[in-house]
Amino acid sequence: MTPEQLRSQIRSGQHTGNTSGLCPGFVQCNVAILPADWAFEFLQFCQLNPKPCPLVAMAASPGQTDMPSIGQGFDIRSDVPSYRIFKDGQLEQEVGDIREFWRDDLVTFLLGCSFSFEEALIADGLEVRNISQGRNVPMYRSNIACNSAGRFSGDMVVSMRPFKAADAIRAVQICSRFPSVHGAPVHLGNPSLIGISDINKPDYGDAVDIHADEIPLFWACGVTPQVALEQAKPPLCITHSPGAMVVTDLPNSRLAIM
Amino acid sequence: MTPEQLRSQIRSGQHTGNTSGLCPGFVQCNVAILPADWAFEFLQFCQLNPKPCPLVAMAASPGQTDMPSIGQGFDIRSDVPSYRIFKDGQLEQEVGDIREFWRDDLVTFLLGCSFSFEEALIADGLEVRNISQGRNVPMYRSNIACNSAGRFSGDMVVSMRPFKAADAIRAVQICSRFPSVHGAPVHLGNPSLIGISDINKPDYGDAVDIHADEIPLFWACGVTPQVALEQAKPPLCITHSPGAMVVTDLPNSRLAIM
Repeated sequence: MTPEQLRSQIRSGQHTGNTSGLCPGFVQCNVAILPADWAFEFLQFCQLNPKPCPLVAMAASPGQTDMPSIGQGFDIRSDVPSYRIFKDGQLEQEVGDIREFWRDDLVTFLLGCSFSFEEALIADGLEVRNISQGRNVPMYRSNIACNSAGRFSGDMVVSMRPFKAADAIRAVQICSRFPSVHGAPVHLGNPSLIGISDINKPDYGDAVDIHADEIPLFWACGVTPQVALEQAKPPLCITHSPGAMVVTDLPNSRLAIM
Repeated sequence: MTPEQLRSQIRSGQHTGNTSGLCPGFVQCNVAILPADWAFEFLQFCQLNPKPCPLVAMAASPGQTDMPSIGQGFDIRSDVPSYRIFKDGQLEQEVGDIREFWRDDLVTFLLGCSFSFEEALIADGLEVRNISQGRNVPMYRSNIACNSAGRFSGDMVVSMRPFKAADAIRAVQICSRFPSVHGAPVHLGNPSLIGISDINKPDYGDAVDIHADEIPLFWACGVTPQVALEQAKPPLCITHSPGAMVVTDLPNSRLAIM
């Protein structure tokens, strides 16, 4: 199934759930949609915090619903399997289509996600523990402060994947090639140095096994902008539901900077 | 002073000692000179173990004394500040010139050294502990086996530099650009996983301080081929004396693969 075919199924309501593992090789994105009077500050927050908030694409102007650069025939109002509607920072409802919520002042942001770099790690022969254990990746609120932009601020949320040392070094090399999907890790080793008190109790997702000869690697995580959005409390904000992403026509390899 | 001027001083006996810190920005090399009937196996050992034995240049044919690709007017018989003559693997003497030892069957190998990547780390703002503490870098015999080639074999010798986690990740990125001067680290974290029982007791060089929030990074080290040469016991082998390197005309930046 091509990304265009999958988006067509999503648009017609045939596919409503998780996109993990679908259309391997193609970039999937996190979604954030904001009113124009909040868009500048959010864009600034992304620019100032490129590791947790890597912007893959954004709508050229408020109200724009297509984004030809990321997908043939793409429509942001119908091509995400599940949307979350936040009002004043509170989750109000989860819907399969946002045509009735659409306004001419809404600006769409698509942010890179870890699926792309996990695919690159696996293609290189590394074991990604959350995938081999069939769990959600463990995520933690760190004490690494994001750079503030207007009403947006907060600490960085990080995801964790454990590796043997040689694989950890290889993972840094591989992920450095992909800055638009969180890039190189932001920390490795002792979790308490970034404010994580118990590695076995993630704030989001599931704990995974860490073997005695492994070292935990921490990546900036796409939950960071969601937390910043919840704290900033814009009157309206629409995101994807966790795991139900925008599937683009961009090959993952296209994101490699070299 | 240009590298050519320094080599001229070395040739005339005006400069006889360490080259550390001289001609900053230019590649310095380890030296190994072997009879032709040992050269093929040593070259194979370098090819099979590129991280500890990164070949920057070699003489085009046995007996060749100039190497125009690495230095204008370079002469291997006189342009190293201090040489070590090994017979059957035993150090026989240390001399300032090898004109009287030269033979038409000798083959010269120049191997990359850590000075180049240390300069790149410092240029990026990282603290290299052995330099800031004014000590020789600590080196350890690891249990990482080299790939054998004919009579050459042995375990890898590694050098160690400690960094905070974020700097460790940056060091992996920087050194990955320089595969011909040992490249990315081969290990990080727990020293016992590569057979090092006491990080404060290096087998060569000096111990350096490691702070509580730092992680040790281990690089493949140019002492590895020296150990392999001592073990293989060729009838004749000539090397540089530790720290008294060949100073080439190659800019360090020229070694960056990207």
